[in-house]
Amino acid sequence: MSGKKLYFGIIGAGRIGRVHAETLAFRLPQAGIAAVADVNREAAEALAEHCGIPRVAASAAEIFADPDIGAVLICSSTDTHAGLIEQAAKAGKHIFCEKPVSLSLQNIDRALAAVEAAGVKLQVGFNRRFDSNFERVRQAVTSGEIGTPYLMHIISRDPAPPPFAYLGPSGGLFLDMMIHDFDMARFLMGDEVEEVYAAAGVMVDPAFSAAGDFDTAVVVLHFRSGAIGTIDNSRKATFGYDQRAEILGSKGKIATENRFPNQAAVSVADHVYSDPPLNFFMQRYTDSFALELQAFTHAVIEDRPTPVTGADSRVPVVMALAARKSQDEHRPVRLDEVDA
Amino acid sequence: MSGKKLYFGIIGAGRIGRVHAETLAFRLPQAGIAAVADVNREAAEALAEHCGIPRVAASAAEIFADPDIGAVLICSSTDTHAGLIEQAAKAGKHIFCEKPVSLSLQNIDRALAAVEAAGVKLQVGFNRRFDSNFERVRQAVTSGEIGTPYLMHIISRDPAPPPFAYLGPSGGLFLDMMIHDFDMARFLMGDEVEEVYAAAGVMVDPAFSAAGDFDTAVVVLHFRSGAIGTIDNSRKATFGYDQRAEILGSKGKIATENRFPNQAAVSVADHVYSDPPLNFFMQRYTDSFALELQAFTHAVIEDRPTPVTGADSRVPVVMALAARKSQDEHRPVRLDEVDA
Amino acid sequence: MSGKKLYFGIIGAGRIGRVHAETLAFRLPQAGIAAVADVNREAAEALAEHCGIPRVAASAAEIFADPDIGAVLICSSTDTHAGLIEQAAKAGKHIFCEKPVSLSLQNIDRALAAVEAAGVKLQVGFNRRFDSNFERVRQAVTSGEIGTPYLMHIISRDPAPPPFAYLGPSGGLFLDMMIHDFDMARFLMGDEVEEVYAAAGVMVDPAFSAAGDFDTAVVVLHFRSGAIGTIDNSRKATFGYDQRAEILGSKGKIATENRFPNQAAVSVADHVYSDPPLNFFMQRYTDSFALELQAFTHAVIEDRPTPVTGADSRVPVVMALAARKSQDEHRPVRLDEVDA
Amino acid sequence: MSGKKLYFGIIGAGRIGRVHAETLAFRLPQAGIAAVADVNREAAEALAEHCGIPRVAASAAEIFADPDIGAVLICSSTDTHAGLIEQAAKAGKHIFCEKPVSLSLQNIDRALAAVEAAGVKLQVGFNRRFDSNFERVRQAVTSGEIGTPYLMHIISRDPAPPPFAYLGPSGGLFLDMMIHDFDMARFLMGDEVEEVYAAAGVMVDPAFSAAGDFDTAVVVLHFRSGAIGTIDNSRKATFGYDQRAEILGSKGKIATENRFPNQAAVSVADHVYSDPPLNFFMQRYTDSFALELQAFTHAVIEDRPTPVTGADSRVPVVMALAARKSQDEHRPVRLDEVDA
Repeated sequence: MSGKKLYFGIIGAGRIGRVHAETLAFRLPQAGIAAVADVNREAAEALAEHCGIPRVAASAAEIFADPDIGAVLICSSTDTHAGLIEQAAKAGKHIFCEKPVSLSLQNIDRALAAVEAAGVKLQVGFNRRFDSNFERVRQAVTSGEIGTPYLMHIISRDPAPPPFAYLGPSGGLFLDMMIHDFDMARFLMGDEVEEVYAAAGVMVDPAFSAAGDFDTAVVVLHFRSGAIGTIDNSRKATFGYDQRAEILGSKGKIATENRFPNQAAVSVADHVYSDPPLNFFMQRYTDSFALELQAFTHAVIEDRPTPVTGADSRVPVVMALAARKSQDEHRPVRLDEVDA
Repeated sequence: MSGKKLYFGIIGAGRIGRVHAETLAFRLPQAGIAAVADVNREAAEALAEHCGIPRVAASAAEIFADPDIGAVLICSSTDTHAGLIEQAAKAGKHIFCEKPVSLSLQNIDRALAAVEAAGVKLQVGFNRRFDSNFERVRQAVTSGEIGTPYLMHIISRDPAPPPFAYLGPSGGLFLDMMIHDFDMARFLMGDEVEEVYAAAGVMVDPAFSAAGDFDTAVVVLHFRSGAIGTIDNSRKATFGYDQRAEILGSKGKIATENRFPNQAAVSVADHVYSDPPLNFFMQRYTDSFALELQAFTHAVIEDRPTPVTGADSRVPVVMALAARKSQDEHRPVRLDEVDA
Repeated sequence: MSGKKLYFGIIGAGRIGRVHAETLAFRLPQAGIAAVADVNREAAEALAEHCGIPRVAASAAEIFADPDIGAVLICSSTDTHAGLIEQAAKAGKHIFCEKPVSLSLQNIDRALAAVEAAGVKLQVGFNRRFDSNFERVRQAVTSGEIGTPYLMHIISRDPAPPPFAYLGPSGGLFLDMMIHDFDMARFLMGDEVEEVYAAAGVMVDPAFSAAGDFDTAVVVLHFRSGAIGTIDNSRKATFGYDQRAEILGSKGKIATENRFPNQAAVSVADHVYSDPPLNFFMQRYTDSFALELQAFTHAVIEDRPTPVTGADSRVPVVMALAARKSQDEHRPVRLDEVDA
Repeated sequence: MSGKKLYFGIIGAGRIGRVHAETLAFRLPQAGIAAVADVNREAAEALAEHCGIPRVAASAAEIFADPDIGAVLICSSTDTHAGLIEQAAKAGKHIFCEKPVSLSLQNIDRALAAVEAAGVKLQVGFNRRFDSNFERVRQAVTSGEIGTPYLMHIISRDPAPPPFAYLGPSGGLFLDMMIHDFDMARFLMGDEVEEVYAAAGVMVDPAFSAAGDFDTAVVVLHFRSGAIGTIDNSRKATFGYDQRAEILGSKGKIATENRFPNQAAVSVADHVYSDPPLNFFMQRYTDSFALELQAFTHAVIEDRPTPVTGADSRVPVVMALAARKSQDEHRPVRLDEVDA
């Protein structure tokens, strides 16, 4: 690591911006934070105070203009991601951007073109790839431990729906929530999906219907290899964050359980019980958030490719668009139908 | 139980016939076996010797004619089930028949009409309903323990493909193997399926392709309530019999693990390991085979309805035919399309 | 197995007599029951009716005199065991006797001498050796899977104290309850104990104090090899039968969990729970009761040594006497102090 | 937390000093490090570089003299602890000291007297109290969840023996390794031990014998309440760090499992396996090391009692001395025999 240090500018001081700022400030010796900007200046100031960030910038532009800043962390709202990536790339900054880059393939393509033209590094925030459970599943496939994959299942459920205000511009279940699982499916299997079939509904809260969205869904994935997968999403799992994956292969299977706050079991007259799984994505994925930033920081300092590439940021959006089309037209939809 | 005893005639002395004969001979004090018949007389004689059955009948007809026999156990090949049910019903015998009754809805309907006309009792061998794991899942739904069901998953994998000779007249993956899971889905959810989407392939052995069959499949179930389910079938799970179910509901979830021969875990330098799950359906479901016959015997002696009815024998066949049509036409298929 | 069948006479028609009778009647094709006797004739008659036993004998002597009876099953109260073994041996019957043979080493020695003189086979009812969990632990030691044993722990707790009437002639915690665990320690380790240290108390119910007995105990075992073990006994485990063992060795450890009625886990808002372990020793050890009789029956028919020998019936009594002495004198006690 | 910050001086830049320094530098916003000293100046310099510590002090005395330093972290070798506590107390510094304070009760008493005279705060590094598993066990006792404790077991095994050089001045198994478990027993049960019985041996490596030490031990604890406990220590658990506790009480039991790097299980033809438990105490107890410093920092800033007191630092040493005496004299030993 040669003692070099990478200074970040943070754009967006909301919930996820704070998570990343804490990682950079307190857990990554190789990283520093030079400045933070947010459309809500108070939020930026509070974060600066909390993490010892020396400067609150008036705008993203001010951050792009700062020559001491080597990389930007884009944690603003989804609709601003693609444009900020373009500007950051033009300013020669390396870029870590929250997912998804955009709900529009055109915008994504423009952003990726700008990144390529500038020769900067881009990593998208698919943090779950850095979770030790899912890394272990991936490893079981790459090492041949379970042989050729036949069947794959991802279960990914939130403890409770997000505030409805947040749902508006998010793009709905497929683009906001299942996007992580579309990425995970590709990552775990090391294979590409050719076709999807979506079965979605509203079971949790009729407000999702009113918003033209869904709260419960299964999507079937037809992989190139012939393997078949499913993704199960629900906006409500009363017991906590339900995050699991399993793959059956020609030699065996690998399956992961949830993560729990402790390994204690109580046995009383009526039953044996344990505390429920971790309840909040920031607890559940604490380490993965730190590890993705560490990987990005090392990739920049050592000039190596980032582990989640521009292409990785695009395909899950194609999958989400195909899933939505499948749901709307009630038929399986090939990815090339939405990405001609 | 008043001391009455029910005498059975067994038709079919193959693998499953032997399982049932042992239950009647050694585990069910209220049941006796009067005679056994098989097209292979040697098999019938061996079974009679093993279980102390007093008579080897020359034919099924001889069994139907025996006035001391109160119930018949039909364990012959699938294509003979419906015809034997009709004859048994006309002879006034109560009937326990292995699944499926027939691959043809017409034949099933004729058999069920004969049963109804004769006023005899019929139970179909969906033994897995009597497994303590799946009973517990059912109970979590009926008791309201997990609230309103949202999502259901059944995983049902054989350790290895059956001999190919056996596959011929069996009707293929959907009618031979997944038929159990179609029944299980209805049983667990207490709900009916309106539409299915099948994604099947050949991953295990190309011989399945040659036979026009599949060895790997996911079927999506659209329930009347709006709930969504999946069934995962594979002809090969190297580690043993993989039999699990889970349901997510508005109040929580219930999930079952496989069954293991012991509860010992060994920890050595490289890993923590345990013996693989039970490997053979007759070990895995030992208790359920005994319990289904006990339930049937009690239902006959006490003149109560059987717990798996004629209707329960028909719907899974409709589901299997719809799944096959869905696979062939690559689209979701409503059950009323194959059962107008 | 050559078609030979072994006919038993049962002495004692109480709880454990009934368990064994059911095994012989319904689960062991090679065994038959010729007669049953009990000081309470009604109990014997009820058992005869339940299991189809052709004759109720007036006395044990009548059973010993029956030339068709090849083996006797001694399930009467502990104080009668040694005397009945002597009589049975003199009558040339093979003997399966419930544990312990006697609370007095003199009586045991006289009974074992009679057995040896008569050349009959003797097996004592240490059924837990036939439990698949404990067999697996034993196998991990004999196979070298965990290397040289260093430390061993047995936990053995009853769901609730037995009726106090039963406790009187039983010999107390060490001789009635822990006797199984003393046998298990020798069986699992394949090693002999040289010295014990007992720490016992009354935590559950003061009535045990009044009876000069204990309800809670830990005994430390000093094995010949230098390995160290503990046994934990409690008369009360509200959640069910708590039966576990673990051994740490030079290569790793093996540990067993309890047995549960199903493998279902329910996750709700407050916790994840499952049904409690099996609650009654006859459920918990169902298979082991059948397997020990099967092993005995096969040993007799095939003229092989029984798997639990006369010596195995004696040493645990020595261990129990030493443990009691250790508790009374509050110091470690060598086995040779009580068995000079 | 009022924005106040507590500045530490670190004495001892070895393995555990580094763990604590990283916590203070990167994970505790309320803490800062003003200086570090070590008898090996290079080690101190390396740690200062790694954690951004502004000053390397020439001696502990230089740290005690620094008015900006509010608290000292004593991570030097055990034989220096008591003396440094005295000096720190006289200098008015709050003190966090690694365990044990001393192997001599006289030295401990002198150190505690100095702390009391100075009115400074002292916390001893029994970090395991802050582990979420053991906290959950403690909570089950204090909340009454498992009723009155009857039996307690602690299993605490190292993956491999420490370097022999390290063993010399450490005081041996009871004072170096089991000291943590003596503390844990008191913490979990909320009860005091009156008497101990030790059974220790050398199974792992004869070098322990040569050093007059042990590598394998069971100690029985007689609690005031009448409850009975055991501690199991081994210097070698090939599979990783083996750290568990369980308590049986009048209402039920609580038991903890080890911690694992992931929650993935692989099923193949021969067995089901998972990765071994965490292997190194610094991985296993990462969070607890951070939490104990956090608790200390908050206690100082908010002027509240520390959660591990001076008395807590003394009793485990008494227990260790009694255990050693029990082993040497081969009899149970009361704590007041070594602490008259």
